[in-house]
Amino acid sequence: MKVGWIGLGAMGYPMAKNLKAAGHEVLVYNRTQAKAKAHAEAYGTRAVERLEGLAEAEAIFSCLPTSNEVWEVAKALLPHLRTGTLWIDCTSGEPEKSREIAALLAEAGVRFLDAPVSGGTAGAEAGTLAIMVGGDAADFERAKPLFAALGKKIVHLGPVGAGHATKAVNNTLLAAALLAAAEGLLALKKEGVAPEKALEVINQSSGRSFATEVLFPERVLDRSFPLTFKLGLLAKDVRIGNKVTEGAGVPSPLFHLTRELFQAAAKTIGEDADHTEAVKLVEAWGGDEIR
Amino acid sequence: MKVGWIGLGAMGYPMAKNLKAAGHEVLVYNRTQAKAKAHAEAYGTRAVERLEGLAEAEAIFSCLPTSNEVWEVAKALLPHLRTGTLWIDCTSGEPEKSREIAALLAEAGVRFLDAPVSGGTAGAEAGTLAIMVGGDAADFERAKPLFAALGKKIVHLGPVGAGHATKAVNNTLLAAALLAAAEGLLALKKEGVAPEKALEVINQSSGRSFATEVLFPERVLDRSFPLTFKLGLLAKDVRIGNKVTEGAGVPSPLFHLTRELFQAAAKTIGEDADHTEAVKLVEAWGGDEIR
Amino acid sequence: MKVGWIGLGAMGYPMAKNLKAAGHEVLVYNRTQAKAKAHAEAYGTRAVERLEGLAEAEAIFSCLPTSNEVWEVAKALLPHLRTGTLWIDCTSGEPEKSREIAALLAEAGVRFLDAPVSGGTAGAEAGTLAIMVGGDAADFERAKPLFAALGKKIVHLGPVGAGHATKAVNNTLLAAALLAAAEGLLALKKEGVAPEKALEVINQSSGRSFATEVLFPERVLDRSFPLTFKLGLLAKDVRIGNKVTEGAGVPSPLFHLTRELFQAAAKTIGEDADHTEAVKLVEAWGGDEIR
Amino acid sequence: MKVGWIGLGAMGYPMAKNLKAAGHEVLVYNRTQAKAKAHAEAYGTRAVERLEGLAEAEAIFSCLPTSNEVWEVAKALLPHLRTGTLWIDCTSGEPEKSREIAALLAEAGVRFLDAPVSGGTAGAEAGTLAIMVGGDAADFERAKPLFAALGKKIVHLGPVGAGHATKAVNNTLLAAALLAAAEGLLALKKEGVAPEKALEVINQSSGRSFATEVLFPERVLDRSFPLTFKLGLLAKDVRIGNKVTEGAGVPSPLFHLTRELFQAAAKTIGEDADHTEAVKLVEAWGGDEIR
Repeated sequence: MKVGWIGLGAMGYPMAKNLKAAGHEVLVYNRTQAKAKAHAEAYGTRAVERLEGLAEAEAIFSCLPTSNEVWEVAKALLPHLRTGTLWIDCTSGEPEKSREIAALLAEAGVRFLDAPVSGGTAGAEAGTLAIMVGGDAADFERAKPLFAALGKKIVHLGPVGAGHATKAVNNTLLAAALLAAAEGLLALKKEGVAPEKALEVINQSSGRSFATEVLFPERVLDRSFPLTFKLGLLAKDVRIGNKVTEGAGVPSPLFHLTRELFQAAAKTIGEDADHTEAVKLVEAWGGDEIR
Repeated sequence: MKVGWIGLGAMGYPMAKNLKAAGHEVLVYNRTQAKAKAHAEAYGTRAVERLEGLAEAEAIFSCLPTSNEVWEVAKALLPHLRTGTLWIDCTSGEPEKSREIAALLAEAGVRFLDAPVSGGTAGAEAGTLAIMVGGDAADFERAKPLFAALGKKIVHLGPVGAGHATKAVNNTLLAAALLAAAEGLLALKKEGVAPEKALEVINQSSGRSFATEVLFPERVLDRSFPLTFKLGLLAKDVRIGNKVTEGAGVPSPLFHLTRELFQAAAKTIGEDADHTEAVKLVEAWGGDEIR
Repeated sequence: MKVGWIGLGAMGYPMAKNLKAAGHEVLVYNRTQAKAKAHAEAYGTRAVERLEGLAEAEAIFSCLPTSNEVWEVAKALLPHLRTGTLWIDCTSGEPEKSREIAALLAEAGVRFLDAPVSGGTAGAEAGTLAIMVGGDAADFERAKPLFAALGKKIVHLGPVGAGHATKAVNNTLLAAALLAAAEGLLALKKEGVAPEKALEVINQSSGRSFATEVLFPERVLDRSFPLTFKLGLLAKDVRIGNKVTEGAGVPSPLFHLTRELFQAAAKTIGEDADHTEAVKLVEAWGGDEIR
Repeated sequence: MKVGWIGLGAMGYPMAKNLKAAGHEVLVYNRTQAKAKAHAEAYGTRAVERLEGLAEAEAIFSCLPTSNEVWEVAKALLPHLRTGTLWIDCTSGEPEKSREIAALLAEAGVRFLDAPVSGGTAGAEAGTLAIMVGGDAADFERAKPLFAALGKKIVHLGPVGAGHATKAVNNTLLAAALLAAAEGLLALKKEGVAPEKALEVINQSSGRSFATEVLFPERVLDRSFPLTFKLGLLAKDVRIGNKVTEGAGVPSPLFHLTRELFQAAAKTIGEDADHTEAVKLVEAWGGDEIR
């Protein structure tokens, strides 16, 4: 299939490569053109200088920071798009804005799927992402061969927005688990229990989570905090997760407290820090480090 | 080794059996004597009618609802115990009270380990529990052969109380994850995303936890809520978890909100309901069920 | 001045009367016409059957449940309105929607002030309301003689939306104080301190608030809960209060927890209960009543 | 009456003076003796160098940082005290520890009242404090002439501990109101509403509290934050307020969130800052100041 790709960030860069490796013809566009050229040289994709260059593609992927940027490029490309084009948005976006983007694209007969991913840069590289898809069943079927090149767990969740809603809930659960574990592990440490010992047993028990199994052992305890996912972006996802519960009319005190704590963390620790550095909020309060 | 066992509840019953199966001589005591007799008949242990009957044992296990009951039996047995006896408390107890119990027993030269377990009745039956141990290293070494019959993940965490503190933190993390997932899954359901679809992908993603991987699929979605661990007991553990963070001087807003929500759940849903029924608190608020 | 009045609810009914008593010519409109006729007969105002009947007024007041209804009537009246008409919205509305309504009315040269009030039905009756005004300074000056008939504390707070934002913050503070006092008073009662004794001294101390000084003594302790302000409407105001903090980028954990608790209260106690009945949420949790 | 006074801090210093001015014979003791001597010279009280010097008094007041210090001096004085002596503790103490102190003193036939005060240094100076009394009715009657010299609102609330419980609840309500108002006022400011304007109208409305009426106008808006009551001490009182709700079995999410936020404030802003500086926690998160 001829595929257009918009956004060669930490996730998009390896994902576009995998599409090409799976035999698709891939046109890549990036605001900073040098990145697109490098991609083309490294992997045999084709760099296009202007957005319109993607109009000939049968399917167009967007992989951008927020739904706002997706709206902008969709609006800019709209006059050039052909009926029947399939737009697949891998951004960690907002359900409501996705419905607006889908309506906008529908004016030109363009189909829309929201398809945010989970699995980090490692999963993007290896083509083993989880993909959460919202949109019509027929469009989902059409996109399946493309998804197959990117991930291994591909689930159609519901109408447009369902993918983004589920991703936002997933990330809010991650955020809550990360901070709750920070509260508990720091207290244990101050009471004489080494965090790695506590994690050894928690990870065999009912308190385990992705945060305790992966993030603390690999990133927090050794204080490496490698930058793979910005704190500011997770804070944004948690905001979206709360929009989901609010929109559904579900009182959600834990989601909301997590939202406020992550906003505070982003403000005091910095939007550009890695998301795992949010534990430093609790560490500053408790006067010690989890290590 | 000659071992005494106090408390043949849902966990203690199969655990005492496994000690016997591993070749130890096991004396069992239970407030309701019939249970002790049944155990003796079924597994070849020896039922004792009065607490004092355990005094001859080299090691004594207690597996009771709270530290208060442990304090009571320790006080009652104290005059009969010999110097060098090892007391191992598998109750989900309180660090502070355990330190008091250890001090009490020390008067008679009795050693104390807190050794709460995780893994549920299935893990107790299979002898695959995780065991979180607090106490002196020498006592831990001495208890190792006994622990080997009960669990497969056995960790020495620190001084007396460290086991109970870690167990309480573990269970508070479980409680937080359970309710946070309930908030998110109920909202998704009301927005058109089937909970089992959402879980399918969350469980391959960064939002996963023991609650999303085991409790929701096996107990909540099918509305079976089998009674394996009472809501009132988990609420108690969460209270202990908060005592740990308070005692350590670590501000812990998520732990505390979880505490209040579980207290409210225990009051309005019932102390004797299964702990997974706590999701009904969120369901009542949101006006729908997670299924 | 010739004044139009839309909405003769518990607040609007006496407010329109006071405008007439101050010498203004008052045209009243209500969806249920009988109410408008009764008002006209009782106070010498003029009932109009169709919204358009208000178009001749120099100033038009709206006093409706939410900004949505204001938007509807503004849209319906718009084709009939003359340039220079002043629209004054006393609804407890949303800042953002008010800005949209102001923009809509501006198309026809109509000026807009948001002017929510505080003081309850007693203050509305007596003409002693506090009025929180957002909009241009010149429009505020023009409206002053009208406000003088309705309240005694009239403050120009800022641009369009400033009145609604301040009212929403005010009501969120009320909501937080009401529930926090319920938590504390119920606990004191269970510890043997009579609520009226506790309030006697708190109301001379630093813990006092409108809730402790007025609501508990007059409505909660005697279990009368007279219906003056619906729980569902206060829950809505708290939602708006949280939109204000969110829009401003201010992490606000107490506002958010209050929001979730009021949503839960409205769901489990009922939207149509009086707002003071929100204390029953805490009472159900604590298993006792504040009296 | 011959009265002993222990603790000449910001509150105790003027309170002891007022007792003397009312005609009582006052013996003063302070850990730093110079303060006691200065008091004696200025007001005609008698400075005693050793605690035992107070044993001849008919009534002994303690006014210390926490119940721990009261316990220490009670224990030290106990061997010297006569049956029938009345001990009045004005410390902002803990109900549970007060019951322990009362039991300790009872061994020597000494009676105990807990009698924390509210009203600040200004109220202490003017003798217009509110006094919250716990203990036996007969002891309360006996202390009334002394209380009359210190305050104007004197309420007997219940058995020993009732005074401290009520004071702690009062101060937790203050703390919650202070931070909630900070959240709202900072957001309004960022939306273009001047804090003093917002307070002008909130203080005529249902959102008003001691914090909005007194603390913000007099201490926060002008950034003076005069040191009258340490943040660390208010954080301690909020911890006690939460012990009251916990002891009573009342789920209290707002009390608990307030507790955690004040602990965080005390850790990051400093225990020795004035309590009103807790607003800086919200200001750091929101990136602006309330002025």
